[in-house]
Amino acid sequence: MKSKKLKIIPLGGLGEFGMNCLALRWEDDIIVIDAGLMFPESELLGVDIVVPDISYLIENKQHVRAIILTHGHEDHIGGLPWILNELKVPVYATEFTLAFVEGKLEEHEMLDETELIEITPKEKFTIGPFTVEPIRVTHSLVDCVALAVETPVGVVIHTGDFKIDLSPLDDKPFDLHTFAEYGKRGVLALLQDSTNVERHGYTPSESSVRPRLDELFSQTRKKLFFSCFSSSIYRIRIAVDLARAHSRKVAVIGRSMMESTEIAQDLGYIDVPPGLIINPGQLRDFPPEQLMILISGTQGEPMSALSRAALDNHKHARIEPGDTVVLSSRIIPGNEKSIFRVIDHLNRREANVVYDDGSHGLIHVSGHGSQEEMRLLINLIRPKFFIPVHGDYRYLRRHAQIAMETGAVEHAIVIEDGDVLELDQDDARKHDKVTAGRILIDSGSSIDVVEDLVIRDRRILSEDGIVLAVLAINKRTGKVERPPEVIMRGFGGVDVTDQAREVILRTLEGLSSEQKSDYGMVNEKVRVELKRLIQKVTGRRPMIMPVILEI
Amino acid sequence: MKSKKLKIIPLGGLGEFGMNCLALRWEDDIIVIDAGLMFPESELLGVDIVVPDISYLIENKQHVRAIILTHGHEDHIGGLPWILNELKVPVYATEFTLAFVEGKLEEHEMLDETELIEITPKEKFTIGPFTVEPIRVTHSLVDCVALAVETPVGVVIHTGDFKIDLSPLDDKPFDLHTFAEYGKRGVLALLQDSTNVERHGYTPSESSVRPRLDELFSQTRKKLFFSCFSSSIYRIRIAVDLARAHSRKVAVIGRSMMESTEIAQDLGYIDVPPGLIINPGQLRDFPPEQLMILISGTQGEPMSALSRAALDNHKHARIEPGDTVVLSSRIIPGNEKSIFRVIDHLNRREANVVYDDGSHGLIHVSGHGSQEEMRLLINLIRPKFFIPVHGDYRYLRRHAQIAMETGAVEHAIVIEDGDVLELDQDDARKHDKVTAGRILIDSGSSIDVVEDLVIRDRRILSEDGIVLAVLAINKRTGKVERPPEVIMRGFGGVDVTDQAREVILRTLEGLSSEQKSDYGMVNEKVRVELKRLIQKVTGRRPMIMPVILEI
Repeated sequence: MKSKKLKIIPLGGLGEFGMNCLALRWEDDIIVIDAGLMFPESELLGVDIVVPDISYLIENKQHVRAIILTHGHEDHIGGLPWILNELKVPVYATEFTLAFVEGKLEEHEMLDETELIEITPKEKFTIGPFTVEPIRVTHSLVDCVALAVETPVGVVIHTGDFKIDLSPLDDKPFDLHTFAEYGKRGVLALLQDSTNVERHGYTPSESSVRPRLDELFSQTRKKLFFSCFSSSIYRIRIAVDLARAHSRKVAVIGRSMMESTEIAQDLGYIDVPPGLIINPGQLRDFPPEQLMILISGTQGEPMSALSRAALDNHKHARIEPGDTVVLSSRIIPGNEKSIFRVIDHLNRREANVVYDDGSHGLIHVSGHGSQEEMRLLINLIRPKFFIPVHGDYRYLRRHAQIAMETGAVEHAIVIEDGDVLELDQDDARKHDKVTAGRILIDSGSSIDVVEDLVIRDRRILSEDGIVLAVLAINKRTGKVERPPEVIMRGFGGVDVTDQAREVILRTLEGLSSEQKSDYGMVNEKVRVELKRLIQKVTGRRPMIMPVILEI
Repeated sequence: MKSKKLKIIPLGGLGEFGMNCLALRWEDDIIVIDAGLMFPESELLGVDIVVPDISYLIENKQHVRAIILTHGHEDHIGGLPWILNELKVPVYATEFTLAFVEGKLEEHEMLDETELIEITPKEKFTIGPFTVEPIRVTHSLVDCVALAVETPVGVVIHTGDFKIDLSPLDDKPFDLHTFAEYGKRGVLALLQDSTNVERHGYTPSESSVRPRLDELFSQTRKKLFFSCFSSSIYRIRIAVDLARAHSRKVAVIGRSMMESTEIAQDLGYIDVPPGLIINPGQLRDFPPEQLMILISGTQGEPMSALSRAALDNHKHARIEPGDTVVLSSRIIPGNEKSIFRVIDHLNRREANVVYDDGSHGLIHVSGHGSQEEMRLLINLIRPKFFIPVHGDYRYLRRHAQIAMETGAVEHAIVIEDGDVLELDQDDARKHDKVTAGRILIDSGSSIDVVEDLVIRDRRILSEDGIVLAVLAINKRTGKVERPPEVIMRGFGGVDVTDQAREVILRTLEGLSSEQKSDYGMVNEKVRVELKRLIQKVTGRRPMIMPVILEI
């Protein structure tokens, strides 16, 4: 008789960055760790988000017991609506993570039907043959945990995303002791975050950006715009604290920034005395040197508040000479063009723009541990088997090498999405392959149109037809040089070509010539307006791809 | 009567990176410094290159006396065929730069009709009211010059691209003395390269990569693949020297790499003893530890030799476990996805890939001077007016600030493409605007199809029709999941849709499933094959845009 094995089955995030999702299976019980999304490569026109192919979970529907989340970042929770649409299972997460999840499920009208279960570090819970202990880790987000899963063949620890922040901004330190205890008792397998495997040394603490930011607050004589990832609660906390210290009122602009600031305030992660936060509409009531504006849009997203402000196109946020704009974030590869377009627009308005260009003091730190933190945790845990998670293939391979070099690991194994790793007390080997891959989703638009955030598979969308809109814009004059071409496929009888042309022309007329030279924005605007039109007239939701000819 | 003024008119490269081109005008005489191209943003589908709009020069055709080139990089010479097509004027450049220009003009069958004039540092020449002295500078390329232009109102110095390399690899040092002399005699205006204005300190010498590369040569037990920009002659020199020192034969793979290695050898920049260089076909005759392969493709260009080798798709270059691949180049923003795809493919083949990730020793250095080098040159030249050139708006603005902080400059002036700056002995002011902008070009394909490298304006191409090919590829199985959609516009009677579909299917069948998951490659292959078909059948050369649906 074949002895029983534990199966580790990554469905996303191993061999790519993003859409983290991993299944643990013992006989007829499956638990899923994380359910993330990723953002698509630029070659994939008209795709907004990418989620893992969960055919394996769907085929084994009756065995899936739970989804457990390590923390609230999009690459760990963003695929939830999609997955919960297929699998009705409870979702386990910490308090703060659940707050983000609730917002997301509400948007998709799935909140009522989903069972959400709050977990707490050091409080074990049992799901079938698995007993899970959440262990507090530090990261750029608050309330993050690793998971220690007791299985019939031994303990498996999944770090989630982590860094070892020895000067945390809240009273929730990285729980070195619990990891050490597991290490002493013996751990079968460690699955560790590979994100920063190419960085030597240690990642600086979240608190290490404070001195330089303090300096910037001191030096700014006019308005101070502060932009960071809206989920960077620690960063928001520092900015709000500095605003208080420098007698500036705080206005929060941008939907995502408002949401996460509210959640963080509700759960006590930010301390805001009455009167500190003002409405954006009150900005004109205060002199510029008494204002700090928390604003979303660090990645140059064309419809974000910051991009709009940079083109004088935001009702409340006006950029004026002498204002300082701080981008306290990293430049995600692939976003350079959009980010630098925004920075150039800000410069033309004579703002002082401070971003992570290596020439200032520290204004951003990574949320992921560097090599020494990886080594430290490996030394504490001393697992028999080591499995790198989160990252492109070269990262996983490098991480496996680093783990072996510590001498604290018996075997390091590189697996990728779809691989089935079978383990027992003595042995771990790749056994099989299951379906894995990516599902491309057109969520309608990345702007704040809640009405049509229903997630739909690109395959289905393309069966609803394809619309290509070819626009010829004269970059110099900003004029539309000839009637837009609208090409539709798969619509049967209905012809909305003429109406579509009109909508495009009207949309372009509504843009300034500076806006028209921002192709990202043109693309987005045209897509949204065409979508509205076509859905109204035909009831269908085709894939829409604007093609810009600059002439 | 209005006094006479010198006009400085940037037509490209001020307000963007690339396509450098600048006119100097005194009354009825115009000289043009550099004639570059740039590569397009990803939003501009189907565009291969971008060149400056030279309407101003065309309108003033009878006054344009010459194009003078500072050095042989594409962003300084790549627009030549396009510009010479409109203006028949002599081209002045140094020996090495001319060798690159000759290759380019030959490709476009323009060599015979163009007058090329060799210039030499310290040897002045006169064009109408301008007397020009080329001054030796150092850069990542060889034989680069700055230009000191004596005009009726004073001397204007244009640095071209430069760094101050104090340990140059050849006997051609940066000519500090001539700059100093001009500074002592008085300089009206300095136009200085802004590229690295965000970097503190000094840029390391070209020779500073040698120690780490030497180490890599020592450590590699199998084949060593060395990739760098094909124009990086110093880098090629170091690699070839190290190959000799470590008893490895050298094979050169990739068209651009072969061309520039040959030119560098002919002109004495690389010293190659007989028998060192072997044909790619001979690679199998030597044991792997005796081979170094110079290969093009550092940016992950889908059809480059390295990309093909990484997918086992190159006749001669085979990647085997234990081989080392060195990417001695920077990762140009926007190319990350393609580069890392190639690196991942190499890793899957168990090659040791060394690239500029900050975690190794120095394997690449910039060719552009950092802040201290900028300050040093400003202090030597002490110009009345300072004008930053080469870069996005924020770079120009920052550079102007830095120049003013030296105290060695009276005024720093930020101008952008199309601005007309008028100068006399006392005064410099923006006066006017001329037409400036970008011309988008579809050169047919970026692969080595010389036959159709005739440059054509995108506007004209789009008048020849538009072809959209929509492909549905199942990423997991690599199968084409439904017949490709081919949408044609502007073709009149001829219908080649069915043939086009067949060509697409045949092209995709010829690719491995790993290749099919590389969208850049699919895109490129489909584009080239469709282009061939349509040109053969219809005689037209439409714009072709493949759209990939991953399902």
